[in-house]
Amino acid sequence: MPQTAAAPLRRPAHDLKVVALCGGVGGAKLALGLDRLLAPGSLSVVVNTGDDFRHMGLHVSPDVDTVLYTLAGLNNPETGWGRKGETWRFMETVADQGGETWFRLGDKDLELHTERTRRLDAGEPLSAVVDSLRRGFGIASVVLPMSDDPVSTVVETADGPLAFQHYFVREQCRPAVTGFRFEGAAAARPLPAAVEALRDPDLGAVVVCPSNPFVSVDPILSVPGIRAALIDCAAPVIAVSPIVGGRAIKGPAAKMMAELGLAATPAAVAAHYAAFVDGFVLDATDAEQRHAIALPTVAVPSVMRTLDDRIALARAVLSFADGLHVQRLAS
Amino acid sequence: MPQTAAAPLRRPAHDLKVVALCGGVGGAKLALGLDRLLAPGSLSVVVNTGDDFRHMGLHVSPDVDTVLYTLAGLNNPETGWGRKGETWRFMETVADQGGETWFRLGDKDLELHTERTRRLDAGEPLSAVVDSLRRGFGIASVVLPMSDDPVSTVVETADGPLAFQHYFVREQCRPAVTGFRFEGAAAARPLPAAVEALRDPDLGAVVVCPSNPFVSVDPILSVPGIRAALIDCAAPVIAVSPIVGGRAIKGPAAKMMAELGLAATPAAVAAHYAAFVDGFVLDATDAEQRHAIALPTVAVPSVMRTLDDRIALARAVLSFADGLHVQRLAS
Repeated sequence: MPQTAAAPLRRPAHDLKVVALCGGVGGAKLALGLDRLLAPGSLSVVVNTGDDFRHMGLHVSPDVDTVLYTLAGLNNPETGWGRKGETWRFMETVADQGGETWFRLGDKDLELHTERTRRLDAGEPLSAVVDSLRRGFGIASVVLPMSDDPVSTVVETADGPLAFQHYFVREQCRPAVTGFRFEGAAAARPLPAAVEALRDPDLGAVVVCPSNPFVSVDPILSVPGIRAALIDCAAPVIAVSPIVGGRAIKGPAAKMMAELGLAATPAAVAAHYAAFVDGFVLDATDAEQRHAIALPTVAVPSVMRTLDDRIALARAVLSFADGLHVQRLAS
Repeated sequence: MPQTAAAPLRRPAHDLKVVALCGGVGGAKLALGLDRLLAPGSLSVVVNTGDDFRHMGLHVSPDVDTVLYTLAGLNNPETGWGRKGETWRFMETVADQGGETWFRLGDKDLELHTERTRRLDAGEPLSAVVDSLRRGFGIASVVLPMSDDPVSTVVETADGPLAFQHYFVREQCRPAVTGFRFEGAAAARPLPAAVEALRDPDLGAVVVCPSNPFVSVDPILSVPGIRAALIDCAAPVIAVSPIVGGRAIKGPAAKMMAELGLAATPAAVAAHYAAFVDGFVLDATDAEQRHAIALPTVAVPSVMRTLDDRIALARAVLSFADGLHVQRLAS
């Protein structure tokens, strides 16, 4: 029986351990809400690295950086990526020299890319670099790249395969997608800390953030062991719909669904996650679609404009998870 | 018999081919004068790479960059290094993150370092990268790193050995020097184009620019084959004193000479170069020291404040070389 509204949390939020899976902008907003709601250090965010690539010789981790900047309060709310108060002298010089300008690296943002590249080239794993970056930013939540091994999202399109950033940034998502590949995934090892967090008997909930199912969440699931850890997870796994009113809040999710022959609906997203999800959160404006979802659901306002919106959605998601947890314990 | 002033050039300057050897700021000023005086493409500048190092994961070539920026008219005249109109958002961010700030990389300057690093890491030799950079800057003169192989200047000091940039930038040349080593020099191959330029039968002159003898010119000479090519060179080799009035125009040359037990005089510099130099240019204010120099000399104003100063010194040096050439042909 679907709930009609989120119940209050039985346990105080600061007693919960939570794992969030996310990509960039949209997912990072909910991760921030969870970060602010929970006790410091109680949240682990497992982040997509399928977008990572070398550009101008620098290792760029777009989703990890968006999560870091968002949790540090340094993100640029206008672009959805990069740092606030950014300047572009480096990029202007690249343009003057006839270099590639389709992927923009800000003057301040470059600090992260040079530091990460230097340390990766010196042999440090990505997770160690990310962990010291997040500590440097004063972030209490744990930020975990899905793997220290390279996994590269390839978007299959009517025009042929495209590396993710070529599809997403250079081509502005114009080509019609026909499918996705995650190169390197078969050989990649999940980050041990991510699997441990999912196996933690004290874990209160897993939240699949409202990120793009195909190019933000599926790359994480493509790493051997992560999907199984979600299926086996003792805590309720809750996914939040990135589709509201038939459209993606941000990014190409709805366009992709149409091109793949799927309805751009919360129900289609729920079906996509059905194998490992225990509950599904959709937007209040889509409440009438709950009958089409063969999972426990809750419909709540999910469009996050303010920090209060982010915290409110985090609280609603955890309340919903808590209720499912109680039901499961009782059954 | 020393000349008292530079004779006019017998041949028009634009008929001459010239090789200049130089380090950074001071040498680059005379290289610029030669570049502006000669026909486009007639000058080859062989540049010290003993200062090169990896910093923040980026391959930095300080002297090559100073020569490139100077010949392109992009150099920062206030600092003597880097680009004019520079901004420092990257460096400020590095400082905020607690990173190393003793070696400053400007936002615009970073373009050169990332591009060079990317291409070196992809397997291109430094000389190919430098050549395409100088073409990109619209520089007609040929800019040749002394070698594509790594050579690292180590400054021996009373406090122990220091990598060049640690001595020069981080320690601000404070430790007393006891000697110098050029690591990698024995195994380094000279840049073939540099040796070819020195062996060119049409070469009109070789100019050792007023750079630091110990840490700008000696590293070039440490590369096997370059000193021999200078000794065997058919054209006159002229050195210009970096010491004027007992002081270096810029940098630690005079301080080093004192620490090494040498007089900080043009004569000591001339003696340092005696094995391969045919003529020596000292400043007009030091004219009385010409008797102490066992080489043909000319004393001319050599402090270069304006572009006209640079061109005038270039013309004086080439006139002097031309006269020596005629004497040599006649003998």
